[in-house]
Amino acid sequence: MKLKVDLFSDTGTRPSKEMREFMAKAEVGDEQLGEDPSVNRLNEMVAELLGKEDAIYLPSGLMANQISFAVHCRPGDEIIMDKTAHPIHFEGGAVSVISGASINPLDGENGIFTTEQVIKAIRTSDYHHPRTRLISIEQTSNLGGGTIWPLDVIEDICQLAREHNLKTHMDGARLLNAVAATGIPASKYAEHFDSIWIDLSKGLGAPVGSVLASSRDFIEEARYWKQRLGGAMRQAGIIAAGGIYALKHNLERLQEDNDNARYLAEEMARLKNIEIDPETVETNIVIFKVKGLTAEQFSKELIKRGVRVSIIAKDTLRAVTHLDVNRQDIDYALTVIKEVTGS
Amino acid sequence: MKLKVDLFSDTGTRPSKEMREFMAKAEVGDEQLGEDPSVNRLNEMVAELLGKEDAIYLPSGLMANQISFAVHCRPGDEIIMDKTAHPIHFEGGAVSVISGASINPLDGENGIFTTEQVIKAIRTSDYHHPRTRLISIEQTSNLGGGTIWPLDVIEDICQLAREHNLKTHMDGARLLNAVAATGIPASKYAEHFDSIWIDLSKGLGAPVGSVLASSRDFIEEARYWKQRLGGAMRQAGIIAAGGIYALKHNLERLQEDNDNARYLAEEMARLKNIEIDPETVETNIVIFKVKGLTAEQFSKELIKRGVRVSIIAKDTLRAVTHLDVNRQDIDYALTVIKEVTGS
Amino acid sequence: MKLKVDLFSDTGTRPSKEMREFMAKAEVGDEQLGEDPSVNRLNEMVAELLGKEDAIYLPSGLMANQISFAVHCRPGDEIIMDKTAHPIHFEGGAVSVISGASINPLDGENGIFTTEQVIKAIRTSDYHHPRTRLISIEQTSNLGGGTIWPLDVIEDICQLAREHNLKTHMDGARLLNAVAATGIPASKYAEHFDSIWIDLSKGLGAPVGSVLASSRDFIEEARYWKQRLGGAMRQAGIIAAGGIYALKHNLERLQEDNDNARYLAEEMARLKNIEIDPETVETNIVIFKVKGLTAEQFSKELIKRGVRVSIIAKDTLRAVTHLDVNRQDIDYALTVIKEVTGS
Amino acid sequence: MKLKVDLFSDTGTRPSKEMREFMAKAEVGDEQLGEDPSVNRLNEMVAELLGKEDAIYLPSGLMANQISFAVHCRPGDEIIMDKTAHPIHFEGGAVSVISGASINPLDGENGIFTTEQVIKAIRTSDYHHPRTRLISIEQTSNLGGGTIWPLDVIEDICQLAREHNLKTHMDGARLLNAVAATGIPASKYAEHFDSIWIDLSKGLGAPVGSVLASSRDFIEEARYWKQRLGGAMRQAGIIAAGGIYALKHNLERLQEDNDNARYLAEEMARLKNIEIDPETVETNIVIFKVKGLTAEQFSKELIKRGVRVSIIAKDTLRAVTHLDVNRQDIDYALTVIKEVTGS
Repeated sequence: MKLKVDLFSDTGTRPSKEMREFMAKAEVGDEQLGEDPSVNRLNEMVAELLGKEDAIYLPSGLMANQISFAVHCRPGDEIIMDKTAHPIHFEGGAVSVISGASINPLDGENGIFTTEQVIKAIRTSDYHHPRTRLISIEQTSNLGGGTIWPLDVIEDICQLAREHNLKTHMDGARLLNAVAATGIPASKYAEHFDSIWIDLSKGLGAPVGSVLASSRDFIEEARYWKQRLGGAMRQAGIIAAGGIYALKHNLERLQEDNDNARYLAEEMARLKNIEIDPETVETNIVIFKVKGLTAEQFSKELIKRGVRVSIIAKDTLRAVTHLDVNRQDIDYALTVIKEVTGS
Repeated sequence: MKLKVDLFSDTGTRPSKEMREFMAKAEVGDEQLGEDPSVNRLNEMVAELLGKEDAIYLPSGLMANQISFAVHCRPGDEIIMDKTAHPIHFEGGAVSVISGASINPLDGENGIFTTEQVIKAIRTSDYHHPRTRLISIEQTSNLGGGTIWPLDVIEDICQLAREHNLKTHMDGARLLNAVAATGIPASKYAEHFDSIWIDLSKGLGAPVGSVLASSRDFIEEARYWKQRLGGAMRQAGIIAAGGIYALKHNLERLQEDNDNARYLAEEMARLKNIEIDPETVETNIVIFKVKGLTAEQFSKELIKRGVRVSIIAKDTLRAVTHLDVNRQDIDYALTVIKEVTGS
Repeated sequence: MKLKVDLFSDTGTRPSKEMREFMAKAEVGDEQLGEDPSVNRLNEMVAELLGKEDAIYLPSGLMANQISFAVHCRPGDEIIMDKTAHPIHFEGGAVSVISGASINPLDGENGIFTTEQVIKAIRTSDYHHPRTRLISIEQTSNLGGGTIWPLDVIEDICQLAREHNLKTHMDGARLLNAVAATGIPASKYAEHFDSIWIDLSKGLGAPVGSVLASSRDFIEEARYWKQRLGGAMRQAGIIAAGGIYALKHNLERLQEDNDNARYLAEEMARLKNIEIDPETVETNIVIFKVKGLTAEQFSKELIKRGVRVSIIAKDTLRAVTHLDVNRQDIDYALTVIKEVTGS
Repeated sequence: MKLKVDLFSDTGTRPSKEMREFMAKAEVGDEQLGEDPSVNRLNEMVAELLGKEDAIYLPSGLMANQISFAVHCRPGDEIIMDKTAHPIHFEGGAVSVISGASINPLDGENGIFTTEQVIKAIRTSDYHHPRTRLISIEQTSNLGGGTIWPLDVIEDICQLAREHNLKTHMDGARLLNAVAATGIPASKYAEHFDSIWIDLSKGLGAPVGSVLASSRDFIEEARYWKQRLGGAMRQAGIIAAGGIYALKHNLERLQEDNDNARYLAEEMARLKNIEIDPETVETNIVIFKVKGLTAEQFSKELIKRGVRVSIIAKDTLRAVTHLDVNRQDIDYALTVIKEVTGS
């Protein structure tokens, strides 16, 4: 059956007709030489949005994380992040390969850890240990269920980092969903971090890329790493234009995705054999458990009916709302879930 | 003054109106999940063109080289390549960082080395030495002046490699220019190599990307490395479509670039203060020396007159012909060069 | 005050007069060329002790771990080990640097994890994830308190590993203390592992080195890594002879250290402000908590009285028994601890 | 036949009876904790000899090179050294693995390159290139034939390095042979370099180790790397004492080795089928060519008669003089060579 409602991920959003037209007219140049006007424009827009000196367009969010780690760390250093963080599970073990750094995973709650946990995790200065160098935070926490890092927790942890001479990094793959939900400007979150990036191809709906922002010196160093990892492209203005369009037109509407996710969660909470606390759904990610069926069986039954979600664990699934899913689609998905769970 | 004729590199080619329209209509999906039909189609086309089992779309040629090295080599291995090869000079030292491999640079002539040189370079099996693992060949040789690796030299070197249990790789950034010049099919060159890639954003004129082809097993492994290096994108079909269009429409015309380069070289050979042997210009790259002026002065004078070339050394420059440069442009460039060199 | 009883670690054991004399007479050669008869003899002895085809002498146990990881893993692979394991805390972050591998830390009990935990930790085959490659077990678990991995747990986990095509490694830094305690031969533990090493400079009392044993192919590969990491020495027979002497004379007596540790633990359990369960002391390591004083204060008070232990956490300390500490020394230490804790 | 005269390498020197006795009485401690008095004493002696703030004992010279590269460089950096340098050929490709740095090999004469060559090799600041970070010099040049880097060339190159903000490193494996030959104090050579090490197990005749000297900060960082690479040992005072003894007793006599090498070269120059210029023999290494026989045949004939040399290339061999070879041994070797070459 053809897929009707795809809640697998917000990475699947397709460029709209208007975005495609905008991209087709993009002014381009050789971005590896810094000569692509659209890429340069996008970088300026994101630097301004995040209140940073400079920014750099990259083919993926993964590369934004890895470049940041490589610039901040030297081989043998250690990065503190939550045990659910993206680089631990979905980046092919890249941290070790590219930076030679190690990860010290904290046991946070729904992806959010505390200053107390950080204090314990910071190594004493001793050549037996890896050297703690960086604290990395994922806003929102994907595997935590789209949870938002509260600004005061961020402030405390970043303050602690400065006291211990540690760097701070925000993986802002879904920062803009947090911004939509809290009304706190992106730059307000960003000001606490030495490096931060946003994704263009998730909720914003652009086809390709992320933009990493930081100080001028950091971005200069990031340019070396972009080249080294094969991220330097040529007439990338075509796809960068998708990002420009998205920032202009799709930023405001992100709260719709958050609202749809909450609505989905609330309705699912009423169903038999579904376990979910709607209160924990703060943005566009709904993580839930199923009973009676395994996650795999549940997923297959949905697919048969044209609805796709993703499997997180044996009994746990994830549904993500986005640009290509409206309230009616959610209602359709709910009908299907109701049917499958026998509610 | 506005740039009239840009001979800096064939990486600067801009997508045509028709290509842009084709791209704007591309069917797309999440390529990181293997669901982008345009990316999949492009991979099939290149696999077929090169006679390989499978292929993988990547954001850059640099990443195609680095992924190949990482799949073929283990840390501590050594790669034989010419001293002018791209990974030595223009890949930010990536080989060491990503593969942990070393490079054994050979002193070839115009970028082409011999079987005798390879034989001497292969290490004996001894744990003091790095372990020779791979021979990498750049077709055509960029810093060698666009020289074509003759098929019989390739056959001999690849035969030697097999005898010594070494892998072989072709950096085919400008392979298609060699194909245009020799009439030898790309697959005929490719059949000798364990891995090979072509660039879409040089002579072919697509905006972004390269495609790496090899056996199914190799490409499976390459997928891990693509993810790990941040090369996995989302709706990359938009830019992959540029590659599809280019393979359909811009392949035949590459010989025009080769012809233009030869014409440029022949005319320059008549000029005072220019040193060049037109016989060495086999494809679309013209490397020449200047007298009277330094390369930098010469370059600046050209720029003032709307012509751009690139500087290779104190007295050496490079002009590259491509899709966006026609015979009239070459004539204009020649007029300017004549003026600047006082001919 | 001069140190009277050093329970800081069994790494501090000094070579005896007899061992020194034996070492001074050692036949030597250039071990980097495989020509040192004492090194070769030691390797044979350990290969036989562990029932493996071949073995290799190394300057430290850390290098034995790191070489094993590098031989088993490729960059991007993941190693399963307990969260207390030595490579996580005391090897300067070397795993990432040398192998490019990542660690997946399990939340075992006293350093011992279960097959269930391993099953959950093994990644599905998907290029988003690091690739699970190796399970590493530390016998005995140092930070676990000298706990012994039971043979049946080992068998189950190694069986599971084979089913999933994973390699297995034993960090046998204190394997011989486990052998002394259980009476199970070292080779019986070793037969389940693809690689395994023992330390010569802990309970065995030799001054320098470890010996890593495995298949002939593995050791051949390890020789490359030994060279690469700077572990290849010259007339190392001098120190290897310490290992030969230790294996001949100090193997039997290891149970004394285990007994002394248990005695120390039992006596400490009677004291005020000390928290310890003597039942958990299975070999020569005693981990205990203090109340009333911080670990640092407690440690300082002991030092003043000539007794040294090590600090594990704010309220936790470790005492290790060894060759240079006899029952009288333990009694002296107990007197001091009694005094300091106000018992 | 038993080996009578071993000219294979000065790495094969065996500790004398007196050195062994001295070592057997060495005061020791846990060097990984900085508690081994003999190791500490040795470090002080070498720091003083080389006029540096601090020093660190290591199990091999290879590790001294690799630690220095790792401290000076970040991944992606480039190191300038001669094409014959030890790290290129005999360190198992470790530079890429451990530092993630690349090597830019210069085409020096007998291992000695010029400031002009360095100037050309320094990369312009551009993210396409690796970043030039370090110049490494091998004193004396082993594969260059024991050639001595003249102090004025060193001064010029190190001056150039400072102007370009590059670090400088001396691989002083046989620095002390140069000191013996020129009468220039080791500290006079050392003052120009950011890091420098000497080998204890070559001409000095100690069994194991090297000592790396530099600033206090550098050595602090080196301690992390020593731990990380598995170079931190335990009661290493036993072998460090060999170094102490060697520095006290074997320093003066190194000129004997140089004299013996020159004598050997001069006598060989008179022989048929031997090609050597005795003037090039500046220290204890004699590199020569044979005619009529291959190097392998020549080597085998010598071995039959109890003399060992090493093979460098198809027609090239190397003889190294050292502590265990006196003038009579040289005369015996000459008799054998005369016989084999039919002189």
